[in-house]
Amino acid sequence: MLKVFICGGSGYTGCELLRILALHDEVQIVGVTSEKSAGMAVSELFPAFFKYKDLRFENLQIEKIKNRADIYFLALPHGKSQQIAAELLNNGKRVIDLSADFRIKDVQIYEQWYKTQHMFPHLLKEAVYGLPELYREKIKRGRLIANPGCYPTSVIIPLYPFLKRDLIDPETIIIDSKSGVSGAGRKAEITLSYCEVNEDFRAYNVAKHRHTPEIEQELSFILGRNIKVDFTTHLLPLNRGILSTIYANLNKSITTREALEILEESYKDEPFIKIMPEGEVPAIKYIKGTNYCYIGAIVNQRTNRLILISALDNLIKGASGQAVQNMNIIFGIEETKALNALALSP
Amino acid sequence: MLKVFICGGSGYTGCELLRILALHDEVQIVGVTSEKSAGMAVSELFPAFFKYKDLRFENLQIEKIKNRADIYFLALPHGKSQQIAAELLNNGKRVIDLSADFRIKDVQIYEQWYKTQHMFPHLLKEAVYGLPELYREKIKRGRLIANPGCYPTSVIIPLYPFLKRDLIDPETIIIDSKSGVSGAGRKAEITLSYCEVNEDFRAYNVAKHRHTPEIEQELSFILGRNIKVDFTTHLLPLNRGILSTIYANLNKSITTREALEILEESYKDEPFIKIMPEGEVPAIKYIKGTNYCYIGAIVNQRTNRLILISALDNLIKGASGQAVQNMNIIFGIEETKALNALALSP
Amino acid sequence: MLKVFICGGSGYTGCELLRILALHDEVQIVGVTSEKSAGMAVSELFPAFFKYKDLRFENLQIEKIKNRADIYFLALPHGKSQQIAAELLNNGKRVIDLSADFRIKDVQIYEQWYKTQHMFPHLLKEAVYGLPELYREKIKRGRLIANPGCYPTSVIIPLYPFLKRDLIDPETIIIDSKSGVSGAGRKAEITLSYCEVNEDFRAYNVAKHRHTPEIEQELSFILGRNIKVDFTTHLLPLNRGILSTIYANLNKSITTREALEILEESYKDEPFIKIMPEGEVPAIKYIKGTNYCYIGAIVNQRTNRLILISALDNLIKGASGQAVQNMNIIFGIEETKALNALALSP
Amino acid sequence: MLKVFICGGSGYTGCELLRILALHDEVQIVGVTSEKSAGMAVSELFPAFFKYKDLRFENLQIEKIKNRADIYFLALPHGKSQQIAAELLNNGKRVIDLSADFRIKDVQIYEQWYKTQHMFPHLLKEAVYGLPELYREKIKRGRLIANPGCYPTSVIIPLYPFLKRDLIDPETIIIDSKSGVSGAGRKAEITLSYCEVNEDFRAYNVAKHRHTPEIEQELSFILGRNIKVDFTTHLLPLNRGILSTIYANLNKSITTREALEILEESYKDEPFIKIMPEGEVPAIKYIKGTNYCYIGAIVNQRTNRLILISALDNLIKGASGQAVQNMNIIFGIEETKALNALALSP
Repeated sequence: MLKVFICGGSGYTGCELLRILALHDEVQIVGVTSEKSAGMAVSELFPAFFKYKDLRFENLQIEKIKNRADIYFLALPHGKSQQIAAELLNNGKRVIDLSADFRIKDVQIYEQWYKTQHMFPHLLKEAVYGLPELYREKIKRGRLIANPGCYPTSVIIPLYPFLKRDLIDPETIIIDSKSGVSGAGRKAEITLSYCEVNEDFRAYNVAKHRHTPEIEQELSFILGRNIKVDFTTHLLPLNRGILSTIYANLNKSITTREALEILEESYKDEPFIKIMPEGEVPAIKYIKGTNYCYIGAIVNQRTNRLILISALDNLIKGASGQAVQNMNIIFGIEETKALNALALSP
Repeated sequence: MLKVFICGGSGYTGCELLRILALHDEVQIVGVTSEKSAGMAVSELFPAFFKYKDLRFENLQIEKIKNRADIYFLALPHGKSQQIAAELLNNGKRVIDLSADFRIKDVQIYEQWYKTQHMFPHLLKEAVYGLPELYREKIKRGRLIANPGCYPTSVIIPLYPFLKRDLIDPETIIIDSKSGVSGAGRKAEITLSYCEVNEDFRAYNVAKHRHTPEIEQELSFILGRNIKVDFTTHLLPLNRGILSTIYANLNKSITTREALEILEESYKDEPFIKIMPEGEVPAIKYIKGTNYCYIGAIVNQRTNRLILISALDNLIKGASGQAVQNMNIIFGIEETKALNALALSP
Repeated sequence: MLKVFICGGSGYTGCELLRILALHDEVQIVGVTSEKSAGMAVSELFPAFFKYKDLRFENLQIEKIKNRADIYFLALPHGKSQQIAAELLNNGKRVIDLSADFRIKDVQIYEQWYKTQHMFPHLLKEAVYGLPELYREKIKRGRLIANPGCYPTSVIIPLYPFLKRDLIDPETIIIDSKSGVSGAGRKAEITLSYCEVNEDFRAYNVAKHRHTPEIEQELSFILGRNIKVDFTTHLLPLNRGILSTIYANLNKSITTREALEILEESYKDEPFIKIMPEGEVPAIKYIKGTNYCYIGAIVNQRTNRLILISALDNLIKGASGQAVQNMNIIFGIEETKALNALALSP
Repeated sequence: MLKVFICGGSGYTGCELLRILALHDEVQIVGVTSEKSAGMAVSELFPAFFKYKDLRFENLQIEKIKNRADIYFLALPHGKSQQIAAELLNNGKRVIDLSADFRIKDVQIYEQWYKTQHMFPHLLKEAVYGLPELYREKIKRGRLIANPGCYPTSVIIPLYPFLKRDLIDPETIIIDSKSGVSGAGRKAEITLSYCEVNEDFRAYNVAKHRHTPEIEQELSFILGRNIKVDFTTHLLPLNRGILSTIYANLNKSITTREALEILEESYKDEPFIKIMPEGEVPAIKYIKGTNYCYIGAIVNQRTNRLILISALDNLIKGASGQAVQNMNIIFGIEETKALNALALSP
C-alpha cells in the first residue's frame, strides 16, 4: 500500500482528494492537515466522509510529517507550497503540488502575477508540469509535479493539436471560459454567498486572471515562440465544471470533420479525453464528478474560424483527479485507478 | 413628501426597503446608515441601485439622525434596535422596527430565546405587532411598530381563521416551514456559501428556532390561552420565498371547500391575501417579488387533518414590504402604494 | 460474470442502473430496452455514458430477451412491469422491479391508488419488499423483488425502531417530505421545465400521493395493525435527494440522546445507514450520489414530540442503488459492491 | 386609456407583457390570445396573475380582434406574425412584432436562416427596427415595429459607439453570449427540463444561431459595409438574463477609461443604458427584472483588444420591456412608464 499524505485537507481540492482516494485500493491516507480544523476528525467537519472517522486533521509541522508517507499532495494556498515542497524533496519524498507555485518556469512572471516572491527558482526548473497528455514520460520520472490549473487544462488540451500542426494563427486566440463556483475555493465571502451567486452570472478578473501566464507559457512551448492570448473567466451559478469556448483564425481552410479527426488522432490513446461527434458539443453534465475532458470542434466556414469547446470538472481533471492520475503514473499504478466513475447525471 | 430614514441599509431587508421605496411617489429617503459602508454611495455598494448615486451610507449616530425624518425603519440586528427606537420615540418620531426587539410581549421569553437583555420593557407594551390583517386599527395609531417575522407571518395568517372559530385542536399544530436563503441575511459564512447551499436542503435550528415564541404568542392571543407548537425550519436552495406546510387535527369534520370558504370569507377585503382555488396549492413562484401571501387548504378526510399551505416572499410580505404596508397605513397613504408588483415569473 | 438485463434504460432509474453497474466488476450488462430510442447506442443518447458505445437500446420483446440474462431489472412505468415480470419468472429468471407494481400486497388498495388493474395477484403474495434493512433474509431467497419507493424508504427506515418499540403514537405520525426533481422522471412537461421549477418550491399531490399506501402498509406490518398517516410531498429545486421530516407524539418521555441510541443500536450492522451525532441533522449534500441513508433525531421536550429527519438519494438508495444492493444480496456478492462512493460534495 | 391587444399571451414574452402592463396606468388590455388555453382566464393558467381573473384567452381570429385595440403586440412564433401584422396594418392599426418576422431587411437572408417564406417583402422595407437607442425618431412614426432580438440588443448597443467611430476592426469581432433558460421559451422539452439544465452549461447552435444575420445587418448598417461575425450562444442555468462578452481588435490604442467615456458620451441621455465605472463589470443580478442594459469595457493592453460586456434581462430589455418602451415612444407616453423597477436582488 502506497502511503499518502495530504497537506491542506479542508479546502475543496483537499476534500476532493479524500473523496477520490476513498475508493483507491492501493493507497492508504496516513495524514491530513488543516490549521483551522486541527484536532477534529475529518468526519466531524465533513459528515459525508464518515469513512474518515479515525483520521484527524493536524497542524502542518514539517518535522512531524516528513517521514510518514511516500507521496505528499499539497493542496495549499499559492505561496504556501514552496517551502514545504522543498523540505519534502530534500527528504527524498515525491510531491504533487496543486497550487500554482511550481507551474510558471519564469520566476519574474510568477512574481509579477502572483505578487509573491519565489524562494526556490531551481525547483521551478526541475518541476514537471503535470499534464499527462503532454508530459507523461517526464511525470513518470518526476520528483516534483506542478499540477496544472483547472482553466489551463481546459485550454491547452484542445489547442495543442492545432498549434502543433500550425493550423491556427496564435495571435488570434481568444479564450472565453466559464467556471462553477467551487473553483473559487471554500471561503466565507459575501461575493461567494448563495444569494449573490444564484441567478447571477458575471465575468471576473477580466484581462488579469492568474491562469493567463500559465496558458501562455504552455502554448508558447508548443509553438516554440512567445504568444499572448485573451483569456476571460466567468462565474457560473453551479457547483462544478469548467467550459471553455476558444476561438482562433485558421491558417488554412479545414472542415469541422477534419478538425475533429485531428483531435481524435491526437488523443486516441488517452483514457480521459473524449472527442464529441460532429454536430455535438460538450456539456458540463457529461463530466461532472469525472476525470474526463470532453472536446468539441466547429469550423465556422463563414468566418474561417475554428471554435473549440472543452468541458471538465474543475475539481477532478482540473485539480485533484489529475493529481491522482499523476500519482498513478509515477508509481506504475493503472492510470485510471479510482478515476473511472461516470458523470453523476442528472 | 414623507421623509423616511433607514437604519441599516446594507443588509437584505434594508436593501429591499431601498428597492421598494424607489417606486413610492409619496416618500423621500433622507438617509441610510451602514457602519461597514459608511461614506460609500448606495449605488457603489449596490450597482443595481444606480438611482441612489447621491445617497451615501452614514454611521448610525442618533444625534445626527433623530431630527431628519418623519419615520424611521430599523433594519438592524436583534438587540441593536432597542436603544435607537427608544430615543427616536422620545424625539416624537414614528418607528417601524424590522428586528425581533419589540415583537415579544413577555420580557422573560424574549430574553430566554434571544439571549440578550431587554432594556425597555414599557415599550414592549406599547409596541404594536405590525400584522395589518389582524391589527390594522392599532397600527394606524401606533408610534412603534414591531414588524412581524417572516415565518410567523406565513403561519399566523392561515391559522387565524381556524383558531378563531375553534375548528382545530391547538395541541396538534405542526408547522413545517421552508425558506429561501435570503432569510439568513447578507453574511460572509461558509455555511451560506453557494457551493454549500446549492443542491443541498436541510433543517436547521430544529425545535429551537427563535420565531417559535413569536408564533406561540400570537396564536395564544387568538385563542385566549397559551399553546405550544412544533415549528421546524428548512433552508431551500433558492433566493426568496417561504412556504409553510401546517398540520392540525380538526375539531369537527369539514370539507376542503368549507376550509377554503372560511379563508375566503376572513380575507375577502385584504389586498394582499390570495386564497387558492380548490385543488390548487400556493407556490413560491406566485409570490416572488411581491407583497402577497397565497394560502391553500386541504382537508385530509382519511386522517381528519387540516393541511394549510402558505407562500410569501420573506423579504417583502415577510419583512420590508409589510413594513412599507404599515407605513402606508400609519400615514393614510393608499395601502398598496409601491406594493402592487406581480410576481417576477419565471 | 452475472448477466444483467435492464428493461427501460432511458429514464432516470434505468440510466442510474447503467451508471452504477459500469463500476461493478462482477456483472455484465447484456441488454437494455427503450421504445423511444431503440436502435441508438446508449452513448449516443447519453454522451456521458461513452463506455456503452457498443450497447444499443432495443425494443422490449419478451421472446427476444427472456433467455439472455440471469437477472432483469424492470425500470418501467407503473402498470407495465406486471406482464414482463410474470413471463420472466415463468422462465426461471430473477426479477427486480423498480416500479410500484408488486409493492402493495392488497390488490384493491393497489388498484384504487394506481387506477389500473392488477393481473397477477398471486405474484403480489410472493413478491419480497426489497428493503434490506427489514427483509434481508427474504430477499436472499426472493425470485421477485418489489424495490421500494424512494419516499417510503426514507420514511420506513427511521420510523421502524420506534414503532417496533411502541415508543410513538402511530395516530400522530405526520410525514413532510421534500424531493429533488429527478423523482418525477425524465419527461417533457412544462411543469418540470427549468424555468418553472427553478426558484420555485411547492407541495404536490397533497393527501393523495401514491406512496401513501406503501408507507402505511409497511408501518402497519411493523406495528401489527392498520394505521393511516399524513404524508405530504414537495418539489425541491435540485436534481437529487429526498429529505423527510417526520413528527410523532412520544408514548413515553425519552431524550434526544436516547432516541439516537435506539437508531444506532438498530442499524449498527447496516452498511448504508448512518446516524447523525446529537445536535446535527442530515443534509442532502451528505448523500448525493451515494447509497447511504442518513438519519437524525430530535426530541422536542416542549411538546413531547419526536422529530426524525432522513436524507437519501432518491435515484440510488431510493431506487437503482437499492436495486443493485438487492441484486448483490441475492447472488451472494459483497453487499456494498459498486455502492461505496462517497457523496459528490460540493 | 390606450387599448392594447396581445396576440400570444401564454408564452414567456406574452406573459411578460401582461406582467409589465399590469402596472401601466395609461393602457387597458382589451384582449389576449392563446390557442392552447382559449377559454381559460389568464389567472387560471397563471395563478400569479390574479389581477387578470376577468381576462380570458381567446383564439386568434383576425376578424374578431382587428377592431378592438389601438396597438397590437404580436408575441407569436416566427413565421406566424407575417399575416396577422399585414392584416392589422391594413386595418390602420399599429403593430409591435416581437418575433423575427420583420427584423431582417433582406428577404433571402430571412428565408435562408428561418427556413420559411416571407410573404410580405414590402412590409420588411417599412418595418422599423425597434431599438430606441438607435432609431427613436423612426419608431415615433412607425406603424410596424420589428422588436429586436434579445441577443442582438445586447450586442448592438455596446458595439455601436466603437464601430461608428471606426475604433475597432470589424473583421475581428467575436461575440460570446450566455443566456438564461427563459430565452428558449415556455416549452415541454426534455432538453429544457429542470434536471437536464440545472448544474449544466453548454453552447448551442454554434456558428448557426438565427440572431447572427440580425446582428450582422445592424452592425453593417452602422459601418456602411457588410461584415460577418462569430456569435456563439450558451445556455445558463438561471431563469433570466443575457450576458454578452464581445471581443474586437482596436484600430488605435485607447485606454479603458477612454472606452468608458465613449460609452458614457454616447448613452448619457438614454434612460435605460448604464455604463459601469472603471474596474467593474456588469452582472445579471443588476438587471434581473428590469429594462436596463448595463455595459462595461476593458482594454487589454497586452493584446490591444477591446472587451465589451453587456447584461440585460432577455424578457424585458431583450423583448417585452423594449416592446413597451417602443409603445410609449409611439404614443407620446413617458418613455420609462411601467419600466422603472430596479433589479430584484437578491
